[in-house]
Amino acid sequence: MFLLQRVISTTLPSSRRLFSSIGSHDLSKAIFDLNQEMESVFGEPPPSSLSGSIDNQSMTRDLKLNTVEMDGKESFARLTHIGSKGEAQMVDVSRKDISKRVAIAHGKVILGQKVFDLVSANQMGKGDVLSVAKLAGICGAKQTSNLIPLCHNINLTHVRVDLALNPQDFSVEIEGEAASDGKTGVEMEALTAVTVAGLTVYDMCKAASKNIQITDIRLEHKTGGKSGDWSREK
Amino acid sequence: MFLLQRVISTTLPSSRRLFSSIGSHDLSKAIFDLNQEMESVFGEPPPSSLSGSIDNQSMTRDLKLNTVEMDGKESFARLTHIGSKGEAQMVDVSRKDISKRVAIAHGKVILGQKVFDLVSANQMGKGDVLSVAKLAGICGAKQTSNLIPLCHNINLTHVRVDLALNPQDFSVEIEGEAASDGKTGVEMEALTAVTVAGLTVYDMCKAASKNIQITDIRLEHKTGGKSGDWSREK
Amino acid sequence: MFLLQRVISTTLPSSRRLFSSIGSHDLSKAIFDLNQEMESVFGEPPPSSLSGSIDNQSMTRDLKLNTVEMDGKESFARLTHIGSKGEAQMVDVSRKDISKRVAIAHGKVILGQKVFDLVSANQMGKGDVLSVAKLAGICGAKQTSNLIPLCHNINLTHVRVDLALNPQDFSVEIEGEAASDGKTGVEMEALTAVTVAGLTVYDMCKAASKNIQITDIRLEHKTGGKSGDWSREK
Amino acid sequence: MFLLQRVISTTLPSSRRLFSSIGSHDLSKAIFDLNQEMESVFGEPPPSSLSGSIDNQSMTRDLKLNTVEMDGKESFARLTHIGSKGEAQMVDVSRKDISKRVAIAHGKVILGQKVFDLVSANQMGKGDVLSVAKLAGICGAKQTSNLIPLCHNINLTHVRVDLALNPQDFSVEIEGEAASDGKTGVEMEALTAVTVAGLTVYDMCKAASKNIQITDIRLEHKTGGKSGDWSREK
Amino acid sequence: MFLLQRVISTTLPSSRRLFSSIGSHDLSKAIFDLNQEMESVFGEPPPSSLSGSIDNQSMTRDLKLNTVEMDGKESFARLTHIGSKGEAQMVDVSRKDISKRVAIAHGKVILGQKVFDLVSANQMGKGDVLSVAKLAGICGAKQTSNLIPLCHNINLTHVRVDLALNPQDFSVEIEGEAASDGKTGVEMEALTAVTVAGLTVYDMCKAASKNIQITDIRLEHKTGGKSGDWSREK
Amino acid sequence: MFLLQRVISTTLPSSRRLFSSIGSHDLSKAIFDLNQEMESVFGEPPPSSLSGSIDNQSMTRDLKLNTVEMDGKESFARLTHIGSKGEAQMVDVSRKDISKRVAIAHGKVILGQKVFDLVSANQMGKGDVLSVAKLAGICGAKQTSNLIPLCHNINLTHVRVDLALNPQDFSVEIEGEAASDGKTGVEMEALTAVTVAGLTVYDMCKAASKNIQITDIRLEHKTGGKSGDWSREK
Repeated sequence: MFLLQRVISTTLPSSRRLFSSIGSHDLSKAIFDLNQEMESVFGEPPPSSLSGSIDNQSMTRDLKLNTVEMDGKESFARLTHIGSKGEAQMVDVSRKDISKRVAIAHGKVILGQKVFDLVSANQMGKGDVLSVAKLAGICGAKQTSNLIPLCHNINLTHVRVDLALNPQDFSVEIEGEAASDGKTGVEMEALTAVTVAGLTVYDMCKAASKNIQITDIRLEHKTGGKSGDWSREK
Repeated sequence: MFLLQRVISTTLPSSRRLFSSIGSHDLSKAIFDLNQEMESVFGEPPPSSLSGSIDNQSMTRDLKLNTVEMDGKESFARLTHIGSKGEAQMVDVSRKDISKRVAIAHGKVILGQKVFDLVSANQMGKGDVLSVAKLAGICGAKQTSNLIPLCHNINLTHVRVDLALNPQDFSVEIEGEAASDGKTGVEMEALTAVTVAGLTVYDMCKAASKNIQITDIRLEHKTGGKSGDWSREK
Repeated sequence: MFLLQRVISTTLPSSRRLFSSIGSHDLSKAIFDLNQEMESVFGEPPPSSLSGSIDNQSMTRDLKLNTVEMDGKESFARLTHIGSKGEAQMVDVSRKDISKRVAIAHGKVILGQKVFDLVSANQMGKGDVLSVAKLAGICGAKQTSNLIPLCHNINLTHVRVDLALNPQDFSVEIEGEAASDGKTGVEMEALTAVTVAGLTVYDMCKAASKNIQITDIRLEHKTGGKSGDWSREK
Repeated sequence: MFLLQRVISTTLPSSRRLFSSIGSHDLSKAIFDLNQEMESVFGEPPPSSLSGSIDNQSMTRDLKLNTVEMDGKESFARLTHIGSKGEAQMVDVSRKDISKRVAIAHGKVILGQKVFDLVSANQMGKGDVLSVAKLAGICGAKQTSNLIPLCHNINLTHVRVDLALNPQDFSVEIEGEAASDGKTGVEMEALTAVTVAGLTVYDMCKAASKNIQITDIRLEHKTGGKSGDWSREK
Repeated sequence: MFLLQRVISTTLPSSRRLFSSIGSHDLSKAIFDLNQEMESVFGEPPPSSLSGSIDNQSMTRDLKLNTVEMDGKESFARLTHIGSKGEAQMVDVSRKDISKRVAIAHGKVILGQKVFDLVSANQMGKGDVLSVAKLAGICGAKQTSNLIPLCHNINLTHVRVDLALNPQDFSVEIEGEAASDGKTGVEMEALTAVTVAGLTVYDMCKAASKNIQITDIRLEHKTGGKSGDWSREK
Repeated sequence: MFLLQRVISTTLPSSRRLFSSIGSHDLSKAIFDLNQEMESVFGEPPPSSLSGSIDNQSMTRDLKLNTVEMDGKESFARLTHIGSKGEAQMVDVSRKDISKRVAIAHGKVILGQKVFDLVSANQMGKGDVLSVAKLAGICGAKQTSNLIPLCHNINLTHVRVDLALNPQDFSVEIEGEAASDGKTGVEMEALTAVTVAGLTVYDMCKAASKNIQITDIRLEHKTGGKSGDWSREK
């Protein structure tokens, strides 16, 4: 199934796919909405890498310029980690303001009933699955910039990871929070905390089942930066 | 909702919850199945930590011993990272055999249509989202034992990460493979590769949407070790 | 001997031990002194983790509440890395003030006379034991937050490690200093510098003796933070 | 006091100190014993770095040669991390045999009675001081070669850390074990596990007292390698 | 000048540049020589990533296929870290033989006369520039796989770094050696050792001059693997 | 040749070499120039390590004092990472001012024509050599303080790495930029970015040739700090 879709997504020429996917709905409308959304998130557009640098892949550049004429430049600028040359770049945050940043992320590890009961029974012990995973999540947050290539290395003022057993779907619910006083958001730190905690739950339970799944990893809440507060609607 | 469930899962006394969750289905049957499954995965039971060591939390131990009498010891032994004292432990693999180990994991990042189109359009560029994430996943696999506390540090003979756009649900499909000649499985390395790749996709797209989700992270295939080959049924 | 004591410290029921150890001296007096000391160290009590979160181990919570009634809450709050739920937590320093922080720690590696003479003789060489250990200590300080789970990652403005041979007890004396402009103290960085330097001395001498000991690792001096200066009385 | 000793150990000219420390007891006897001991530990002498390389600090070399004539060369060769040029070096273990290696180390954190009672009371909680430190120690062992400059990076087949409260001296006793199938011993991994666990206990208790000390860090037992088994006499 | 050349190298359409650079000499001859050389280095061609995977950038693939028809496929296969899809990949070494691997690399830091004299004068001190750089190089070699994305993490049996002052061009000459028993060569470890040592020399001297240059970093010698021994002709 | 020079540079007694190299030109003049240059770079002299500490290698100290009398102290103070005792030290930047710091470094990897053509042909692919190296360089910059012992760990606000093919000498030109708001310069971060990118190019091409060289790694431009702007004359 997975391989099948890869075929589908890859057999049509990229350029064709580009247009077809654009054709598949009103992109310029999407871009417009996007820009609104973006304005509130980023404020000033991110600085492009090395001004005056020349795209050393002219075919790509031409294709981009066309697209740009077609759908209004921002569609590329807005993938802030992609430079004007379509190259990966770290966002330059030098000019951003310092503010208190907080992000809360959520994730879930679906254990299945058998494993859930084993983990529940272990709840009384020291160093049980949930508290090992909690600690791993806290440590993981501090490794974020070593894992994610274009992430800035920052100092976190707080990391919190909480795990709870959810008997309704035999899962472990994970909530991770990161805070910093700085120029960059801390969403990735909160998400990394949740993810590493989830991987640790998996590691400690994998001997009991091969049907464990880590799922629903997403941002729940963020404050700070120009965009101010945001929370996911329930 | 999440908080609500935490209340549910936590207001009943742990011991009560323990029995109710046991009562909620035939645990001894589960344990029996589990042991079958386990036998094929682990062969000999993992060595317990420090033989002759004394549980220094007698209340917990008593509770465990009761449970053990009740449902047959293995239920604890089988969380291989939990020692006889209910303490976190690294599994001692000294006595395991060396064999070629391979694991393949899968994950998905759901982008939504707008972000999907941005990423698709960027497919022509160098250092686009997918190839940055691919590289991050490969590097992430090498960090597995620094992220997951009870994971052994091993030498990987191969890491592969492939990402593909799936236009059917506007997602990025991620497949990660790790291989090693050693005494421990490489599931966690494959899962970490997928997860770090997913976080990197998230990082590079987060400016365009706060509704991105990393999901369906699971093992697809493994070979090596006493258990031999295993593949998820489609 | 070690194992024996573990038996002693563990055979009495935990609850009993709790009270007996409390009974073993006037804890409430201890708590009172502690609070005085604490007030001067921390100023405002540290924020508890996730307000409104529910302890999902009611037995523990009850036990705590009792104890709290008995000896005045602070005794738990004051292990600042233990949350209201008795869970490990990183202290949230967001609200602390920035000030110049300095800490000086001390440690000792007892070599015995034979090894001491070998190290002394080597003093003339380049890259001798003491200068390798010095460098290792400086590097170690920069790894503190990667080693100690609940330690914040901070930027150090200075690290200094000095080692000297002490012919009176055939030891290496180690002094480590860390400095930072930040919201957290740097005691752990100074102690980690000393410890890693000590381990490095051990590593370079271990071939010559198995009776080397690293000992007397302690804080000597600290400045900054609300508590101002502190120095150990000689 | 500390500074005073540094004066003592440093005011006499190094060369004078060298001889005086040699004169302070029968070094050649020490060297002889040492060689016996060494023979059993290392078997063949470690390879010197870059054969045919020239000491680029002739004064040092001359001094060494004299000393060598005087006390029989081995005194330098036997600090295995010091090359023939008196330079730091990693031991080349290429020619060593692979065998199962195990090392057990011990350490102690003296808390004082007040802190001891706080930690004891917390014993019932999840993620209490001892289980956080236990986990930190396990993770620390995996970082050994990143901390100790001349340590080989190896794959550990097992790491175990146990902590226990010792009410007799109000301390935490720490025992660390590392195992590997390889060419190098694992003493440093066991010692690093103990040390990092001790630092973590310190970190979690430091708010309650500045008089905590990490002490008595030493090797207790080792097996494997040419030297076979060794245990400290009690 | 640098920017100018970038213009030159980038203004002609990539495809044109491809042919022109091919045209600029007899590539098929080059490929033939290359294959000879390659045969002796790699033996069997490296496995391609995920067999059956589809290039999801058809334009590129077509261009590749053309080129392949034109110049015989190997020209792509031979960049062993580039997959059949033109994607970055780690080489799968599972099937390679284990043998003793040694690599020696060389580098040079040109200090200029003033800085050279300062470093020379410091030669008498402990922890002087050269011995700090030596140690940094040894530690750097152990970080190779954390720095170079497609490098395997391996266990090194030996690392050696030697630095010497060269008064003829006022430089520091650096020689680095790495050894391993494994399936992959250790060239990158030796080169990383040299490079990190060079950066450390730079760091310690940079206050004295901005005209320091790190240069001539190259492989000098290698043994092991199918290719056997190789040494640079002087 | 290399070994020969080492002989040359080492056979004369170090003290002799010291004077001869001094004699080889007017050092006091050099020192004077140096101080001018230094004044503009560092402003106030760096604080010495532990005031009142005693040099525990008197021979060295004496030699230094002589030299100092001879050529005016600064020559030693100006190797800012060498303490008054001739020991390695991290510069204490506590008292330096915070300012926006930017550094740009340059390097070159000489591929030779055959490898150059292979890399050029691969330019059309995703994850080609240059974009993998670009990413590695960005990640490498974040590892600078883990690689260079006396480097401060700092937070970077931006890292940029650009690579371009230079057909004139069949090389890859690398430009790296690092930026930070802090008390220390970011030259080492820019140089590390360039160097790690260069090593990655090497790694991806090494199968095709053993004659690749990384060369001409140097600082191109810096701003910030007391010294203000500096650029290399072309």
